[in-house]
Amino acid sequence: MKKTTVVTLRDVELKSPLMIEGLPGVGHVGKLVADHLIEELKAEKIVEIYSPHFPPQVIVEKNGTVRLVRNEVYAYRSSDLDLLIIAGDHQSTTTEGHYELCNIFLNIAEKYNVKRIYTLGGYGVGKLVETETVLGAVNRTELIDELESYGVEFKEEEPAGGIIGVSGLLIGLAGLKGIDAACLMGVTSGYLVDPKSARSILKILCKALDLEVDMKALDERAREMEKIVAKLREMEQGVTPVTSDEDLRYIG
Amino acid sequence: MKKTTVVTLRDVELKSPLMIEGLPGVGHVGKLVADHLIEELKAEKIVEIYSPHFPPQVIVEKNGTVRLVRNEVYAYRSSDLDLLIIAGDHQSTTTEGHYELCNIFLNIAEKYNVKRIYTLGGYGVGKLVETETVLGAVNRTELIDELESYGVEFKEEEPAGGIIGVSGLLIGLAGLKGIDAACLMGVTSGYLVDPKSARSILKILCKALDLEVDMKALDERAREMEKIVAKLREMEQGVTPVTSDEDLRYIG
Amino acid sequence: MKKTTVVTLRDVELKSPLMIEGLPGVGHVGKLVADHLIEELKAEKIVEIYSPHFPPQVIVEKNGTVRLVRNEVYAYRSSDLDLLIIAGDHQSTTTEGHYELCNIFLNIAEKYNVKRIYTLGGYGVGKLVETETVLGAVNRTELIDELESYGVEFKEEEPAGGIIGVSGLLIGLAGLKGIDAACLMGVTSGYLVDPKSARSILKILCKALDLEVDMKALDERAREMEKIVAKLREMEQGVTPVTSDEDLRYIG
Amino acid sequence: MKKTTVVTLRDVELKSPLMIEGLPGVGHVGKLVADHLIEELKAEKIVEIYSPHFPPQVIVEKNGTVRLVRNEVYAYRSSDLDLLIIAGDHQSTTTEGHYELCNIFLNIAEKYNVKRIYTLGGYGVGKLVETETVLGAVNRTELIDELESYGVEFKEEEPAGGIIGVSGLLIGLAGLKGIDAACLMGVTSGYLVDPKSARSILKILCKALDLEVDMKALDERAREMEKIVAKLREMEQGVTPVTSDEDLRYIG
Repeated sequence: MKKTTVVTLRDVELKSPLMIEGLPGVGHVGKLVADHLIEELKAEKIVEIYSPHFPPQVIVEKNGTVRLVRNEVYAYRSSDLDLLIIAGDHQSTTTEGHYELCNIFLNIAEKYNVKRIYTLGGYGVGKLVETETVLGAVNRTELIDELESYGVEFKEEEPAGGIIGVSGLLIGLAGLKGIDAACLMGVTSGYLVDPKSARSILKILCKALDLEVDMKALDERAREMEKIVAKLREMEQGVTPVTSDEDLRYIG
Repeated sequence: MKKTTVVTLRDVELKSPLMIEGLPGVGHVGKLVADHLIEELKAEKIVEIYSPHFPPQVIVEKNGTVRLVRNEVYAYRSSDLDLLIIAGDHQSTTTEGHYELCNIFLNIAEKYNVKRIYTLGGYGVGKLVETETVLGAVNRTELIDELESYGVEFKEEEPAGGIIGVSGLLIGLAGLKGIDAACLMGVTSGYLVDPKSARSILKILCKALDLEVDMKALDERAREMEKIVAKLREMEQGVTPVTSDEDLRYIG
Repeated sequence: MKKTTVVTLRDVELKSPLMIEGLPGVGHVGKLVADHLIEELKAEKIVEIYSPHFPPQVIVEKNGTVRLVRNEVYAYRSSDLDLLIIAGDHQSTTTEGHYELCNIFLNIAEKYNVKRIYTLGGYGVGKLVETETVLGAVNRTELIDELESYGVEFKEEEPAGGIIGVSGLLIGLAGLKGIDAACLMGVTSGYLVDPKSARSILKILCKALDLEVDMKALDERAREMEKIVAKLREMEQGVTPVTSDEDLRYIG
Repeated sequence: MKKTTVVTLRDVELKSPLMIEGLPGVGHVGKLVADHLIEELKAEKIVEIYSPHFPPQVIVEKNGTVRLVRNEVYAYRSSDLDLLIIAGDHQSTTTEGHYELCNIFLNIAEKYNVKRIYTLGGYGVGKLVETETVLGAVNRTELIDELESYGVEFKEEEPAGGIIGVSGLLIGLAGLKGIDAACLMGVTSGYLVDPKSARSILKILCKALDLEVDMKALDERAREMEKIVAKLREMEQGVTPVTSDEDLRYIG
């Protein structure tokens, strides 16, 4: 495996599905939502993507076995909604890798005739936040009104630094292919894995998709995190940013 | 888009134009000048350049939509002066990218029979400066006298560390193609976006091009920055260097 | 040599050998074991691998001559056990290099019909440890029982951060080729070259291979290191992590 | 110029010359010697090498013009000694670049039937040194006796960390091509440009080549540096390592 390798596990038939991307990033917000959806919807894995752009690393699973770091695509089918969900352990470690992987996701989107892409992420503001704000950015102006009706907020030129990584690049590149795409960003401290912010996104996503999803697991994680945050406030001392999966496991 | 992609938006006819490059860099001096010229001259965009050498990032625009990070070429035509202006969000993140993008700019220069290139940048001296000095460097000795007559200063072997990034590389590579090129560097602290230094360059550039440009917008920004600088002097405390666009927006 | 170059020094015949990998890493644990085995078993070098993914560096040998940084494969043959041992000065400095070199190791494994791979490494816990624990991870569940019988411990999702570098990647990629592979990780501080942890791994490996190896050299090193550790405890002051070979020489 | 480009300025005839490499590195020791030799011997430049592996940068020369960062090969011819001298502004910024450029140097060596290569560098010991020690490393044992007779010292496995960069890689790769090569390393603090250490190397090199070279320029620089060192000792305060050319100009 010297090149990025796309392993198709099974071919499914989907009716112009929506695509949802939730890879690790700020506060692991996007990953928490995607993983939660996959579990609750019992989505089935249809694609595995391996790449030398991922860290040279294996993940040790519960049973003591290992597997290569990878990205995955899951499919969910129901009578009125079909979904493709992109999840994974890591984003690319290189700039070119980001472009390459986004192209792969878009090829899959085109193959399945995806009509809209939602990318999910956190928007780190550098301090502990109570808000449940979800910021949006789109690749076509016409999407804004609809998304605002679900509770997404749009602020002029925010995030000022642009959107970095797959969540931004994917909607930008989707525009070049004529696929509607929106990025939903949960406002979060950036210091901690943030299931509360993930829940805020999930609520909005459920409205947008007209979908019902049990949120118990996220609720529990959010409560636990609130206790940690309370303690942190007590201690009033600095914490360091969270960016990799192990922290998810440690805290979650 | 796995490779650098040059999107030609329209073909224009230009009479042996000058090329001006002003990409983000020290004090955003070059970018401020190029963006100001594009706006005041109502130059029209003729080329967009996308590249995996740019950060994997999208820019969120005023209307909430996103676009990929890119470089752009604008054309300006008038009875006695034609210009090609290179502007953009970022320089390459990789060394090879720098070489590749400079080659693309030079191919465009050759296509339009560009007779001279001006690259614009800041020369960071590490402390707040009052001076309006513009340092020059050229790729052919014969250009020095002319530029000195516009007020550009030439100092032996300065900048001692050479000129890093597109502004330096482009005039170096232009020499190999036999195109005259000069780099104009506004002396600046390197700590802050510096519209005052940009104005110093613009004044000289206007003399060199025999061009009149309204400077109000830059003047205003310069005044605002002077207030900030005054405050900084009061506070007499360290500040950190500015290198990316968001800061431009934040301060400007 | 612009590409990774595999120099086959001699072709040997091996009866479905085991492959053991011990390259530099955390606490140099893996390297200590592999180098010790090569010396004690008088294994013969059959392959040298040179690569631009290794640091641009030469090693100065005892006699004042230099040689390029490289990885090596040694062969050991006996009546009831054949081994291929991977050793070397450095791991790849790039992500792609890691993938490329693991593929090379696996090609060699396939060529010789290797039936199982053991990769050896350290598991840094960030504090001085007295324990002789060896953690395991495998690429097929069925291997766990056997390895536990030799004293290897398996802990759910440990190491939580996955296994980084050749030791992890090799067993992950081996799985894709259908070759059984296990990673044995000696628990170590991560601050010091750790011959004691290496000895713990070697003991287990000897059980697994039904092999007898003189451990005197490792024992001596372990005793020396114990003295250093004792001193460190006295001083009760921080030490910095060890990651490159020179330190091996310095301390060992 | 997207690839490394070798510009042959003129073809010369040389009688099995020696090759000397002195690129920037620790204490700029090698560069000082190579530049000094080129000037004193009035060697003529025969090759320029441009590469995207060098920093994307131009050098501003005395007359205010710029040129791309490059490496150069100079030729010196006399009745009893012919030389090829490799000099330049920078070493490669990438690992692959190091390998690529060393191959280019070796191709030139083969073309001119070079019988021996001397690479020159500094050996940083991390503290101010009075000694004039020159350490050696060779790619064939037989060279040691001869070099010791010129005053080069050989110490077992020193430098312990190997020799990093062109000076090491070139003699390592030369060995693969059957060209004798030695690295001469002037012991130096690593904190300062060190003309005194350069002079120590030059003296030995002159013996080895049976060559007479005026050392006045280096002597002057060495005296100036001695004053600086004396001041530093007075101040007894830390200084930071020197690695790029501008510092050469600043101090020299």
